[in-house]
Amino acid sequence: MGWAIALHGGAGDIPLSLPPERRQPREAALRHCLQVGVDSLKAQKSPLDVVELVVRELENNPHFNAGRGSVLTTEGTIEMEACIMDGKTKKCGAVSGLTTVVNAISLARVVMEKTPHIYLAFDGAEKFAREQGLETVESSHFITPENIERLKHAKEANRVQIDYTQPVEKETPTVDGDSQIGTVGCVAVDNDGNLAAATSTGGLVNKMVGRIGDTPIIGAGTYANNLCAVSATGKGEAIIRGTVARDVAALMEFKGLSLKEAAAYVVEECVPRGNAGLVAVSAKGELTMAFNTTGMFRAAATEDGYTEIAIWP
Amino acid sequence: MGWAIALHGGAGDIPLSLPPERRQPREAALRHCLQVGVDSLKAQKSPLDVVELVVRELENNPHFNAGRGSVLTTEGTIEMEACIMDGKTKKCGAVSGLTTVVNAISLARVVMEKTPHIYLAFDGAEKFAREQGLETVESSHFITPENIERLKHAKEANRVQIDYTQPVEKETPTVDGDSQIGTVGCVAVDNDGNLAAATSTGGLVNKMVGRIGDTPIIGAGTYANNLCAVSATGKGEAIIRGTVARDVAALMEFKGLSLKEAAAYVVEECVPRGNAGLVAVSAKGELTMAFNTTGMFRAAATEDGYTEIAIWP
Repeated sequence: MGWAIALHGGAGDIPLSLPPERRQPREAALRHCLQVGVDSLKAQKSPLDVVELVVRELENNPHFNAGRGSVLTTEGTIEMEACIMDGKTKKCGAVSGLTTVVNAISLARVVMEKTPHIYLAFDGAEKFAREQGLETVESSHFITPENIERLKHAKEANRVQIDYTQPVEKETPTVDGDSQIGTVGCVAVDNDGNLAAATSTGGLVNKMVGRIGDTPIIGAGTYANNLCAVSATGKGEAIIRGTVARDVAALMEFKGLSLKEAAAYVVEECVPRGNAGLVAVSAKGELTMAFNTTGMFRAAATEDGYTEIAIWP
Repeated sequence: MGWAIALHGGAGDIPLSLPPERRQPREAALRHCLQVGVDSLKAQKSPLDVVELVVRELENNPHFNAGRGSVLTTEGTIEMEACIMDGKTKKCGAVSGLTTVVNAISLARVVMEKTPHIYLAFDGAEKFAREQGLETVESSHFITPENIERLKHAKEANRVQIDYTQPVEKETPTVDGDSQIGTVGCVAVDNDGNLAAATSTGGLVNKMVGRIGDTPIIGAGTYANNLCAVSATGKGEAIIRGTVARDVAALMEFKGLSLKEAAAYVVEECVPRGNAGLVAVSAKGELTMAFNTTGMFRAAATEDGYTEIAIWP
């Protein structure tokens, strides 16, 4: 038993032909964010602080679909959402429909700590962010040229584009092999078995205005209790129907499965193939990263020296 | 095995001294709504149609905290939410932040059937309702004099008032013993074991603008799969943390408990006393109505002739 941390930058049909200029910046970002998390755990920060910090870093990186790199709604706007949960207390905070808040995950944390509620959305969440003095910027800050292209392609293909689904037909060189980008998340456990999970996303390319996905839903995209912490990624609607994050914990709690067994069961049996991935750690310091997609951008480390940064199986 | 139906009009600390003029209209409404549901099941309507129909009736009744009788936010506004789920397919639809839609539950059904998404909220949900031709009215339609009083009292007591919590101090005769009103929900199963669940609410008195509760969260306030259908009511934040509706199903699925055992376990072990109630039916035609509050407005019937309309244990 010791500390453990795992993070992801999205699961989906990531082509093996992903060009180096698309692959390397993300691998570098995963490495950097993992180091931030490991350093924080070594410095005795709480898992709740660690997962918030790591997800902030991921949100600030335009190569992932959260914060700075959020994909666009069908109207070309930004609607970010996030969720954070503490395992021991089951305290949690969630936000949706953010348009100007730089770090959605930190607003989720403030909702958790400074309101009698768990979940604030859209105008009320934006207003609360301003009252609490969180950093905000013009919505245009979050909109990258790549995501304008992604929306254009999704509209041409007349579909709601899921993170990392097969490349759309009329692919252009600017987004070659990289038409989708992924939700981010982090889970961590310290030496005392304290657990936390955090997830953040811009949602789906070309999503309807007002659409809420799995990320902010306790038990779907994000969950932590005294047994484990889970952050999921993939097709939000499938993850909601599969109550993915809670089911990992429920299989441990009600069926006595290990973390690895529970995660494998959920990914193989509870969501359709090609739909989901997750990272999870247990109070015993176990760690698993499971997905039924082509790949998942991921990174992990444990106190005993194991480190992994990977995309495909 | 046969059809079964159960519905609720909220759980909470309902005083035994509830005056007849507050009690009787609700009992009459429960009786009426139960009859609507029973007649529909006898007429071979699908459980999904039945729960939608029953919840519409409950939404249209100003004595419950949903639709016409929705409680007010801290700004005196209306923000309604609802969720519907089909057990066999796990298809589901949810909405939050509605201000003008007469029947939130029907919009949830349309989101389920006519979008690639599960969950739409606030302006996007309102816009979609208009595009789909759902009945809308001025927000003032939903605001009852009783709910203006309730908000006033909650503000005087400087608190976010939960459905049916202890009467606030400066109670006035107009809302004597009835300072809170409850979320509504319905679950049904037909002779073939098809299941559905639906829940609708105005939320909490004096809630922050933008607050989302348990009702629209798949696995918290509402859930159905091929084993059972569940609709929960009470303190939303506790129900979200307890993943109440999914846990009833998970205990059946992963631990082999009966519906009654699973519901009893969740209500006794997974949410603090005084916080929650639920109605549930199973594919085998079992039925349970469990709560750890003083009371829960509820009604139920099964094909073999059992009928119950009750408030307290």
